[in-house]
Amino acid sequence: MRLQEQVRQQAVDGKSAAKYLQLASTEQKNRTLAAMAQQIVRQSDQILSANHTDVQAARDNGMGEAKIDRLLLTAGRIQEMADGLLALRDMSDPIGEITERFVRPNGLLLEKRRVPFGLVAMIYESRPNVTVDAAGICLKTGNSVLLRGGKEALHSNTALVSALQAGLSECGFPTNCIQIVTSTQREAIDEIIRMQGLVDLVIPRGGASLIQRIVQGSLVPVVETGIGNCHVYVDCAADLQMASQIIENGKLQRPSVCNATETVLIHQDVSESWILELVTTLQQKGVEVRGCDRIRQIVTTVGEATEEDWNTEYNDLILAIKVVEDLQGALAHIDRYGTKHSETIVTEDAQAAEQFLLAVDAAAVYHNASTRFTDGSQFGFGAEIGISTQKMHARGPMGLKEMTTYKYIGRGSGQTRN
Amino acid sequence: MRLQEQVRQQAVDGKSAAKYLQLASTEQKNRTLAAMAQQIVRQSDQILSANHTDVQAARDNGMGEAKIDRLLLTAGRIQEMADGLLALRDMSDPIGEITERFVRPNGLLLEKRRVPFGLVAMIYESRPNVTVDAAGICLKTGNSVLLRGGKEALHSNTALVSALQAGLSECGFPTNCIQIVTSTQREAIDEIIRMQGLVDLVIPRGGASLIQRIVQGSLVPVVETGIGNCHVYVDCAADLQMASQIIENGKLQRPSVCNATETVLIHQDVSESWILELVTTLQQKGVEVRGCDRIRQIVTTVGEATEEDWNTEYNDLILAIKVVEDLQGALAHIDRYGTKHSETIVTEDAQAAEQFLLAVDAAAVYHNASTRFTDGSQFGFGAEIGISTQKMHARGPMGLKEMTTYKYIGRGSGQTRN
Repeated sequence: MRLQEQVRQQAVDGKSAAKYLQLASTEQKNRTLAAMAQQIVRQSDQILSANHTDVQAARDNGMGEAKIDRLLLTAGRIQEMADGLLALRDMSDPIGEITERFVRPNGLLLEKRRVPFGLVAMIYESRPNVTVDAAGICLKTGNSVLLRGGKEALHSNTALVSALQAGLSECGFPTNCIQIVTSTQREAIDEIIRMQGLVDLVIPRGGASLIQRIVQGSLVPVVETGIGNCHVYVDCAADLQMASQIIENGKLQRPSVCNATETVLIHQDVSESWILELVTTLQQKGVEVRGCDRIRQIVTTVGEATEEDWNTEYNDLILAIKVVEDLQGALAHIDRYGTKHSETIVTEDAQAAEQFLLAVDAAAVYHNASTRFTDGSQFGFGAEIGISTQKMHARGPMGLKEMTTYKYIGRGSGQTRN
Repeated sequence: MRLQEQVRQQAVDGKSAAKYLQLASTEQKNRTLAAMAQQIVRQSDQILSANHTDVQAARDNGMGEAKIDRLLLTAGRIQEMADGLLALRDMSDPIGEITERFVRPNGLLLEKRRVPFGLVAMIYESRPNVTVDAAGICLKTGNSVLLRGGKEALHSNTALVSALQAGLSECGFPTNCIQIVTSTQREAIDEIIRMQGLVDLVIPRGGASLIQRIVQGSLVPVVETGIGNCHVYVDCAADLQMASQIIENGKLQRPSVCNATETVLIHQDVSESWILELVTTLQQKGVEVRGCDRIRQIVTTVGEATEEDWNTEYNDLILAIKVVEDLQGALAHIDRYGTKHSETIVTEDAQAAEQFLLAVDAAAVYHNASTRFTDGSQFGFGAEIGISTQKMHARGPMGLKEMTTYKYIGRGSGQTRN
């Protein structure tokens, strides 16, 4: 079968499984999540051996250690995945919830009811944990899923999906509820995003170029996720000790993720001695600081930040720092270079804080808190399929509710329209 | 200036106006809506004269009377538009509403707040009333708007927007809150839908080919609207008199609109004499009926319905009728040919009704009511910018709330992440 036909057949099968899944009860879905958790633990040996093959090949191809670490599975990590599925089981099911109910003057009762999307396609990098997370979230929300992970994780993902499907079968669910697209060709992605009417939603997770390619080529609605060029603005009225803690946390706690802090903006009236101390501390902790002219006058060891730096999501131990004239200068910088992910103001001035919170156009805007909080678990959503940086449908962390749509149900007694 | 640069400059201006608009108070916006209403009435003469030019040209170019009627303005219709703006003024403002508020264990207070999208682009046909409706809805929801109506309505739309802008100026709002793209070239549309980062949302209203072209070319999130191949299923347990009323209402009350009924599916056990009566009545009322073999055996004057008929949204006095084996047969037909707009079951069997309401994948699913109810005013939304047939963001009638997105506001006291 040609690649396109193969992928299309999987979508047809997934769509048909979705019809079954949308009618499944919460109890059935929960039992299946538990069975899936049990199966991935039971099939640990096969999964670890498949993962070993992937990791070997990745090492041979010179993959960096940070990426190897994201690819690597251990018995402990498999247990964590299983625990994640059990946590999903214990969360409340949004499907079927009536979010609004109203009677029209003619007696027509209208209900707005949460329903699944149908068939969701996940396109992501070589991270096997995303395979299990996405499969679990989709199952809980009654969506079938087409998984297309990075090619370096193909053996691991195939083994994981096989275990998940064993869990589905055990509970009488069609195995097509969770499918993996095994072609490593880019054309497989091109086909997935062109299947209008079959695929209901595409969620790409990965680098900016992958996401842009999907946005540009997709005929199916896309939720863009996770590009985060996040700023901390230190106002003239900031508690500077708090500012240091928030900046260090934003840069150092986990530099590789999308909600890490990438640029610090500092009001021109903030004391030079504090700036000197901040930069020195960061440098001692291994951060390469790049600054504007003013910063470089205060700390001569700082390299020059160029236009490219303001535009860059480093995802690394590099931080850009710029002195701005005032709050308006900070807002203008964020407006120009921000990616609408997470932005923070540090200030004791309530009015400046409100102005910042209202004016900044981003999924999450903070006052006196780290940018690192934009995350499903930190928000208390329990599970997260990604962090949306677009404005349509869902913004910020996408949990179970965000993986649903709705339909209106009208209950009448013969009403016709005048 | 080149066309592309011109359109892009309008988008930049619109985006900058959106920054002003998002901070405007409800009272300011309401005052402006009233001023806009007053201005279109005050400038009636100019608007009617511009509309006369459009209508003349359309007649000369052989436009059909139904379309001419949608293009035509009268003093009464201008007054209706003004009344529509005043009705918007009187509706509650969704912007700023805190829809959720929760405190995390670390003390971080999270608020989910409704905010405007920013800059919305409306691409639509030659209907001047859409110009005023869309401008009003966008203003009320704090969005600036780029209007690109059909070229046959260009003079009318230009005159209307000029009056609306006079209302904006009068209240100190930037006129760029409401802009019209005057180029009648298709390239203007191509440019609008490629302005990722400037345009926040595109809403096309029009025929299937316009909408498909936009979905295929757009880099900006799109809400697809209004393609409605709607069905009425007459179950074996239907109240047949009610069924006749619902079918006649769905086909005859306003055949040109998206929620009109296009195909009737009838359970095989429904009496032939009722079918004969239904078809005869419809034919007497000017409806051309096309049927499956079984229908044509019952009523010999009925033409043959082909595969194309099942797929067609007639928007006209034509109705396709098919006998199906049972409820499953009806569901399969709707699944295959429906456009996820509005679907109705007529039955006195509560269980069959629930099965239909759950299984059908559409924006609105009705039990014993006309498909014609899927409409902002019928739902009590007051205003409507279109009817979404996609699942992302909004489904069904889009009123004020559906023209908003949200952001999370985090209020902390120095929280950092462990």
